[in-house]
Amino acid sequence: VARDHDVPGDGPSAPPPLAPATHGRRRTAAEEARTLLAGTNVGTLATLSDDGHPWASLVTFGALQDGSPVLCVSTLAEHGRNLERDARASVLVAETADPRRDPLGLGRVTLAGLARRPAGDAAHDVARAAHLAAVPAASIYVDFRDFSLWVLQVGRIRWVGGYGRMDSATAADYATAEADPTAPAAAGAAAHLNEDHADALVAMARSLAGYSDAARASCTAIDRYGLDLDIETPRGRAPARVGFAEPVTAPLGLRAATVALAHRARS
Amino acid sequence: VARDHDVPGDGPSAPPPLAPATHGRRRTAAEEARTLLAGTNVGTLATLSDDGHPWASLVTFGALQDGSPVLCVSTLAEHGRNLERDARASVLVAETADPRRDPLGLGRVTLAGLARRPAGDAAHDVARAAHLAAVPAASIYVDFRDFSLWVLQVGRIRWVGGYGRMDSATAADYATAEADPTAPAAAGAAAHLNEDHADALVAMARSLAGYSDAARASCTAIDRYGLDLDIETPRGRAPARVGFAEPVTAPLGLRAATVALAHRARS
Repeated sequence: VARDHDVPGDGPSAPPPLAPATHGRRRTAAEEARTLLAGTNVGTLATLSDDGHPWASLVTFGALQDGSPVLCVSTLAEHGRNLERDARASVLVAETADPRRDPLGLGRVTLAGLARRPAGDAAHDVARAAHLAAVPAASIYVDFRDFSLWVLQVGRIRWVGGYGRMDSATAADYATAEADPTAPAAAGAAAHLNEDHADALVAMARSLAGYSDAARASCTAIDRYGLDLDIETPRGRAPARVGFAEPVTAPLGLRAATVALAHRARS
Repeated sequence: VARDHDVPGDGPSAPPPLAPATHGRRRTAAEEARTLLAGTNVGTLATLSDDGHPWASLVTFGALQDGSPVLCVSTLAEHGRNLERDARASVLVAETADPRRDPLGLGRVTLAGLARRPAGDAAHDVARAAHLAAVPAASIYVDFRDFSLWVLQVGRIRWVGGYGRMDSATAADYATAEADPTAPAAAGAAAHLNEDHADALVAMARSLAGYSDAARASCTAIDRYGLDLDIETPRGRAPARVGFAEPVTAPLGLRAATVALAHRARS
């Protein structure tokens, strides 16, 4: 359900494309969530204190194959005692804050569910391995007797991708979605395009995004499905999306996909 | 109340100083909390969803003079609706994650309390100005009709400074404590000392910290009250603290204080 902000007066507007454009596919909310989880090992846990007050605390996490976060917390800490008493919890995972960026432009996801101890030795070993793979420093304390592993069984997922981009995902979609394998290379790829291939970006804006009057274009984001462009025209600035012919599956596949896209734009 | 982790076997140990050392003053938990708040405009809010589940979400904040966080959230978002229904909330503010660092070594603080709308026009204007000073981008939406300002009346403060460093602070201490004015310059100052003044650090370790057998020393942190050192001796490595004669009050005062400390170490 999308509702507009209750804005006094008119909101900002962007010029429409001059020719039909094929809008590229975007990552789903479930894929965005899995990508955020794969990109860090730090989040914020919300639990219930003994008086019912919500309690926010820093946690490290790994994840099971279905994306369930695996925490390792001490009962000497308030959040550990909270989980022992009440399994209800949520975890916020956010894009790493770049101090130059508007923080509300950052992607983030809340995963809410019930925190459970792994049931049985096999489940414990899987959870332990998942946590250690993401948090190597935990090898120091993971076997301390006051530390416990907890698996958050995710029931509700709310993703926010920045201003005006947000959606919920079902637990089933989340469990089966794939993290974008190109995410670790995306920022570098976008910077490279903007620095060295401004002409290719303008060609994409003109022939693929329908902005035949594009004067300049920059890449604001790139992912396995395509590019987000910020296009300057004599009619004003507009955001647009151009998609790859096929999703990129290799971590280092953005370069070849972008070269192919530039070739398509010019042919 | 400090309790030890329940560790199988012996924990690590460090060699003691060979001569009496004057341990420098450290920031209090209240000062650490105020310093963390002053260092960022992004935190995680924990609120209660309509079914009582704790809900973690990203928020931007400014702060009143007494350190009360000022949030600006939309009722279109779940956390905004949660605050309308139940004032109980907490905010986690953490040191910016450096991907090279062990995340559990990061400083963080949880502020728990009740979120209240500013009462009256004057209080609203003060809260609005405090939020905008920290979050300039909020000027776009702060007056949207679905956005509201909330002041978190802080009742409980729990600070964690990394492994083994943690403490609570009273609301009164928090409200009157000062953020460390040197914090924005600290990382650069420590790096400079380690790169260009290794000899001065060894002199401090030998004559001020009591490690007369120090072979090398590096600065792991610096603040308005002094330096944390990591000292290498033939007996093993040890952490130590050396304090300035007076707290630094100027944002750029670390250099002069460190020069004076090095002079004292050598005289």
